[in-house]
Amino acid sequence: MGSIFGKNIRVSIFGESHGAAIGCAIDGFPASMAVDFAALAAFMARRAPGATAGSTPRREADAPEFLSGIANGRTTGTPIAAIIRNSDQHSGDYAAIASTPRPGHADLAQRMRYGDSCDLRGGGHASGRLTAPLCIAGGLALQWLAQRGISIAARIDAIHGHPIAGERDASGLDAAARAEIETARAAGDSVGGTIACEINGVPPGVGSPIFDGLENRIAAAVFGIPAVKGIEFGNGFEAATLLGSENNDAFALDGEKVVTATNRHGGILGGISSGMPITFRVAIKPTPSIAKAQRTVDVSKHEECEIRVPGRHDACIVPRAVPVVEAAAAIAVMDGVVVRCR
Amino acid sequence: MGSIFGKNIRVSIFGESHGAAIGCAIDGFPASMAVDFAALAAFMARRAPGATAGSTPRREADAPEFLSGIANGRTTGTPIAAIIRNSDQHSGDYAAIASTPRPGHADLAQRMRYGDSCDLRGGGHASGRLTAPLCIAGGLALQWLAQRGISIAARIDAIHGHPIAGERDASGLDAAARAEIETARAAGDSVGGTIACEINGVPPGVGSPIFDGLENRIAAAVFGIPAVKGIEFGNGFEAATLLGSENNDAFALDGEKVVTATNRHGGILGGISSGMPITFRVAIKPTPSIAKAQRTVDVSKHEECEIRVPGRHDACIVPRAVPVVEAAAAIAVMDGVVVRCR
Amino acid sequence: MGSIFGKNIRVSIFGESHGAAIGCAIDGFPASMAVDFAALAAFMARRAPGATAGSTPRREADAPEFLSGIANGRTTGTPIAAIIRNSDQHSGDYAAIASTPRPGHADLAQRMRYGDSCDLRGGGHASGRLTAPLCIAGGLALQWLAQRGISIAARIDAIHGHPIAGERDASGLDAAARAEIETARAAGDSVGGTIACEINGVPPGVGSPIFDGLENRIAAAVFGIPAVKGIEFGNGFEAATLLGSENNDAFALDGEKVVTATNRHGGILGGISSGMPITFRVAIKPTPSIAKAQRTVDVSKHEECEIRVPGRHDACIVPRAVPVVEAAAAIAVMDGVVVRCR
Amino acid sequence: MGSIFGKNIRVSIFGESHGAAIGCAIDGFPASMAVDFAALAAFMARRAPGATAGSTPRREADAPEFLSGIANGRTTGTPIAAIIRNSDQHSGDYAAIASTPRPGHADLAQRMRYGDSCDLRGGGHASGRLTAPLCIAGGLALQWLAQRGISIAARIDAIHGHPIAGERDASGLDAAARAEIETARAAGDSVGGTIACEINGVPPGVGSPIFDGLENRIAAAVFGIPAVKGIEFGNGFEAATLLGSENNDAFALDGEKVVTATNRHGGILGGISSGMPITFRVAIKPTPSIAKAQRTVDVSKHEECEIRVPGRHDACIVPRAVPVVEAAAAIAVMDGVVVRCR
Repeated sequence: MGSIFGKNIRVSIFGESHGAAIGCAIDGFPASMAVDFAALAAFMARRAPGATAGSTPRREADAPEFLSGIANGRTTGTPIAAIIRNSDQHSGDYAAIASTPRPGHADLAQRMRYGDSCDLRGGGHASGRLTAPLCIAGGLALQWLAQRGISIAARIDAIHGHPIAGERDASGLDAAARAEIETARAAGDSVGGTIACEINGVPPGVGSPIFDGLENRIAAAVFGIPAVKGIEFGNGFEAATLLGSENNDAFALDGEKVVTATNRHGGILGGISSGMPITFRVAIKPTPSIAKAQRTVDVSKHEECEIRVPGRHDACIVPRAVPVVEAAAAIAVMDGVVVRCR
Repeated sequence: MGSIFGKNIRVSIFGESHGAAIGCAIDGFPASMAVDFAALAAFMARRAPGATAGSTPRREADAPEFLSGIANGRTTGTPIAAIIRNSDQHSGDYAAIASTPRPGHADLAQRMRYGDSCDLRGGGHASGRLTAPLCIAGGLALQWLAQRGISIAARIDAIHGHPIAGERDASGLDAAARAEIETARAAGDSVGGTIACEINGVPPGVGSPIFDGLENRIAAAVFGIPAVKGIEFGNGFEAATLLGSENNDAFALDGEKVVTATNRHGGILGGISSGMPITFRVAIKPTPSIAKAQRTVDVSKHEECEIRVPGRHDACIVPRAVPVVEAAAAIAVMDGVVVRCR
Repeated sequence: MGSIFGKNIRVSIFGESHGAAIGCAIDGFPASMAVDFAALAAFMARRAPGATAGSTPRREADAPEFLSGIANGRTTGTPIAAIIRNSDQHSGDYAAIASTPRPGHADLAQRMRYGDSCDLRGGGHASGRLTAPLCIAGGLALQWLAQRGISIAARIDAIHGHPIAGERDASGLDAAARAEIETARAAGDSVGGTIACEINGVPPGVGSPIFDGLENRIAAAVFGIPAVKGIEFGNGFEAATLLGSENNDAFALDGEKVVTATNRHGGILGGISSGMPITFRVAIKPTPSIAKAQRTVDVSKHEECEIRVPGRHDACIVPRAVPVVEAAAAIAVMDGVVVRCR
Repeated sequence: MGSIFGKNIRVSIFGESHGAAIGCAIDGFPASMAVDFAALAAFMARRAPGATAGSTPRREADAPEFLSGIANGRTTGTPIAAIIRNSDQHSGDYAAIASTPRPGHADLAQRMRYGDSCDLRGGGHASGRLTAPLCIAGGLALQWLAQRGISIAARIDAIHGHPIAGERDASGLDAAARAEIETARAAGDSVGGTIACEINGVPPGVGSPIFDGLENRIAAAVFGIPAVKGIEFGNGFEAATLLGSENNDAFALDGEKVVTATNRHGGILGGISSGMPITFRVAIKPTPSIAKAQRTVDVSKHEECEIRVPGRHDACIVPRAVPVVEAAAAIAVMDGVVVRCR
């Protein structure tokens, strides 16, 4: 199985990096929402290749074509399908992958999973390119949430271990981070980073204990983004270093509302929203595709060899991953909230 | 919704801390497995109250009673149901919870979620006590996995920020960690910690890209454990601080097998097992129930007040959480593997 | 896999006829419903052994014990678990089943499905006894639906091909039907029949086209009742014999409401409720357990032989199946409606 | 929710009759199957408009365009997406639907379900046209099943109440049936019929008791076909008129195999395949779109009125529904079998 997320809305992602098209089908999206196509395009543009510092020069319009579920600019309530044609592939770049799996990539794992018929060109179904349809679904979810007063905003927390401290450019980077990326690129290498996300406006009482909590759902969605290797809510791993009296957030009154004086819990207690901002942080590993020579195995010859991954790659995908984190979170949160609002 | 996990096996957890019983129903567990009841009891004992340093003196046999799905000592293939009677509750201890939610607990969130009819005694359905039926299901899953050469072992990584470096006792603690816990207990406080888990023997090719990866599944299960605030796979958040050339694991030959020379990826690439050990680390927050005075709100009087959580509480639940992490991981891994083995 | 129904509420059925207990876990049942235990007991009594003409003399209290999800007489919103102990089994009656499968039963099919470890005593998990926990869940669903103005009432339509035309007794039978059953019983035989069900009060607009229609859901639930071999909605198979102009129901006005002048469509169009009464009819095969000699195979000796099914059996289960049809329909309808009401 | 079927394979159907395109996404289809595109086209052609006696003159190529999940002629194991462009709509024909719902159609029910933003042109998402993507998925499932020795064949059983007794033409009709259809067409009317389906080669032991039986699954899939109003397995409703001794199928030996001497049970006992042919019958109502005047309501003026449904309609959709029944059955059976074969 594979590529469907959600219980109340169902997002089904399909496509391979170098196939005919990538896309999504969204089942259960409520009717009557006016779609802001310009806002969606702007959102998609934030993850598009070439949009940000450090990103691949591969350029595609990546404009979704909607096939169903939207009529006269409004959602109809029936499944929404959207596709993006693949038009700018350089499949030749990937010829070597067939026999020499790229370190850090899912080439070999996919072959073990699917057998020799799988389509590994460009990473196939495990390619970061599949985050484009995730952003279509997430972008629509963000619009639906916004109409209910729920906003989701992610930003880069650190690049290559260095917190973003200076003035941010359009990609969310400061001068030091840009330098980190350029240094890596010049060396045929890559860097990763962390992304912090904050969700405001989720009413208290969303989610359930045990398996259907907001933490379970958001984590399950966010690990759908290739390159994510960790997630923590609230103060996360730091909580494990504190005393209970330091980590507990006192309840307090804010007019009629009960709030917490601090928000170390990250807005979720027992899987359920507390009404405080939901905060989480995500670890993004450095792009595995690098020009530097790496050791791998030629699986057809069954001998070790060297590989230099050709093609056009991001020296740092963190800036492009920011809207993708928002998209994944939006789908997870909408899945929890949509039942309550209908 | 709430408390069902899995696609191929379905674990349904029910019960409240101070209700008649807690338990689980497991749908889809394969037939014909001889159940080792002694091994299950030994596994359950590792999380039982009183079993480990720092744990609550509340003592319950916590022996599961199997109602269905096992006959003549073997699984029948039909749903397995098991319950544990609640027998040793001191509900009086929790009388105050009704109006003064405990900081760090889900009392208020549950009230917002379920309304005034919810059963908050002892934390209700969000209580750590619900990890007992999780361990029933997980214990059975561990036995099923063991027969396929898959083992799961978690251990304490650090307590209150201090890595376990010395000789471990039966609870997995060293002298320094025991001292940390005792100091906290004496002060009416609590400490958290981190747990590392390693899964060996998962064949390559289990899991799928995007939403049905092993990372998504394991994370979704592990966040079902109360007090978990973060999870990272492989080198996790540290990966975000490395260069691609440092973080990528080279492929190499080990006889007939393709392996990775290092295992920073934690055994999962693109959501799919690589054949290397699956490794992850979990952050456990300090027990929120502490004797120290804390600020909260009396929601019936709508005024701020002070609370000292009465009752018998763990000064550190990390040792008892170790088998629970194994249980959650076992359910998630079995859910991914079971399709392939039938 | 097996025994879980529903998307918005999840009913998980467990147990074997001669195991320790049978029961259900219901996930997603809304909080705050006051449970009418007397009404539930009265509903359960309608399917209890011995309750109706033609039924087995096996007598069990069959009173559900609730383990979780109900506190102070109200649903808490967390999973409801209930069990019924098995206390009156005559397992010895079934010794022969192990090697000589009963015609019309699932004995052999279960052995092929689960292997030799399956528990076939009394029919195991495929026993009609499992309709008792179905009635627990269905009985609660009926109460929830009733509070929203939705009622479900089934009645016997025909026994052994003879429509019920005369005055009905407490079992819903007329004199002719009772005679049919007694004749069969005296001959060591059994009879089946049809049940008609009508659901009133479902608002228009519940259900979805294609796979999530009310017809799909109700059929999927009703085929969970052993012995059901067919279902038809509205005029069903008769529709296939009519002209379009005869079968279409004209729309008409009834004050402010749009209704249909006739109801051949059975209240569902395109999978969606039309606001008219939902009507369906179910075929119940004659009880397969009969005293008459039948041909079967001794699978251990691999030779054909004769069997007379011993034990206490219903000569006609149709009267007892009436509340079970209501229960299955209630779960299916509640699953469709519950999202809209929260 | 809506349009996703299956647990092990997941078929998601999208599109509206007069939108940009209709299509499907299939998640979980096993890798490495060589797709026979010519066979798929031939299968699709059996349901295409104009293919059979009585069908609409609307003609569309209806050739699926595969976007993902197939590479080099083989399934890759990742989600298969396919679309069919809508090219020959006469939306003007449907202008009246907006305010005057067609009797027997889902126009009004959809409006109640989705609100005014729904796309009712041509029946929208509830249109029979959506059976085209169902046939894409079903056609692929049939090929996968065929490789495992499982075949599914449906045929017309009766038209307008008259069993097909004479020689069948390419549409599966005899002369009498063709005359029935022509008479109806000439009168601006329509007729329905019944379809019988037989599935051979399913190994014994597929399916589970209670909610996951083959009857539940097949019924849930088949009611996804618009116009289906009833389904019965084996001798179905006739079983309700028989004695147990008449209805039970004796077990017998056929060489090494245990078979039943007769097959009144239709190959399924307790939800589980018995190894005998699976047989079921489906009732198809007469096409609701007829030229004859019918009574309806102008919902904008809130007054009763008359409608003559314009456009090109089938006087009898039964011949075109035959492959659709096979497709729905194939998806349901594959969903039950696929776990066992991987």
